[in-house]
Amino acid sequence: MRVYLAGPDVFLPDAEARGAALKSICAQHGLTGVFPLDSLPDEPPAWADLPQCRRIALCNEAHIRGCHALIANLTPFRGPSADAGTVFELGFMRALGRPVFAWSNTEIPFTARTLDAISATRAPDGTWRDGEGLLIEEFGCTDNLMIDGAVFASGGTLVTRAVPMERRWTDLEAFAVCVAGAARVLRV
Amino acid sequence: MRVYLAGPDVFLPDAEARGAALKSICAQHGLTGVFPLDSLPDEPPAWADLPQCRRIALCNEAHIRGCHALIANLTPFRGPSADAGTVFELGFMRALGRPVFAWSNTEIPFTARTLDAISATRAPDGTWRDGEGLLIEEFGCTDNLMIDGAVFASGGTLVTRAVPMERRWTDLEAFAVCVAGAARVLRV
Repeated sequence: MRVYLAGPDVFLPDAEARGAALKSICAQHGLTGVFPLDSLPDEPPAWADLPQCRRIALCNEAHIRGCHALIANLTPFRGPSADAGTVFELGFMRALGRPVFAWSNTEIPFTARTLDAISATRAPDGTWRDGEGLLIEEFGCTDNLMIDGAVFASGGTLVTRAVPMERRWTDLEAFAVCVAGAARVLRV
Repeated sequence: MRVYLAGPDVFLPDAEARGAALKSICAQHGLTGVFPLDSLPDEPPAWADLPQCRRIALCNEAHIRGCHALIANLTPFRGPSADAGTVFELGFMRALGRPVFAWSNTEIPFTARTLDAISATRAPDGTWRDGEGLLIEEFGCTDNLMIDGAVFASGGTLVTRAVPMERRWTDLEAFAVCVAGAARVLRV
């Protein structure tokens, strides 16, 4: 079973080594990890002429279509939410109807992270509002409700773990628990 | 032709009126706008028993499946990127193979917005890196490359406009241009 490893891990200084570490954990659970930086075996030759960013996007979409499931690193990225590319890919796989799993190296809920990041006030109706009056979600979710909703509706699992900030891009314990759960759901 | 109107517009204090304004512009171009807060005509009765956030997520997914195209408001939301729910939905529709369109009330590229939001340094290899060493994308895109890539690969268009901060959640000129472009692509 092939699982697509979505996450901002591709931005790490040692991205290739990170990909290898993630794949190694997948292999321990009988899964084949597919990292976004992997070359696409059957890449159409015409894509070589595209701008690099367009080519990467098409390759990643093809990688996702070629996998049975997706595991997303939702660790907050430059704001209260997960990395935008990761969230895009999670939505993409969800639409294909295959299981999506997720892990995050924080246990702080989305609402609390948002309140930490921006100034907010309680409106007379009891809702939290940001400085421009926009609502702050308060559902006890790990991230935007579409993300949590997709994981659970797909039959996936969501693993969170309190990891100190300085280790949040290295610690792989939540990932390993998530992979073990995925292997169970996928009956590997 | 039905178009799903993804965006953080649902969080605005006057979300219902906002949805009506967006739909009115769609109607002027022969399109039927579907706003995430719209009730789902054929909602399965069992969903009424779900937690509210799960029910909303499933309703929005069903709305997207019921539309011919999606128009996303990518105006940066509480960080350098677009709202996570919007990005999820854009990925979802992209996987369905239907056109995705986008608009944003800023013309500042993603790289510059990220550099504005976080501390970064030029690494010896010439790449921009954040304080934790993670790469900052530098492709001239409007947001993460998966987002721009999906819009263009799907045959959609991406409209950006320089709007003063205080009007970025009210100004609908970029949206109107985006809808007009969608109507052309969809041959309404």
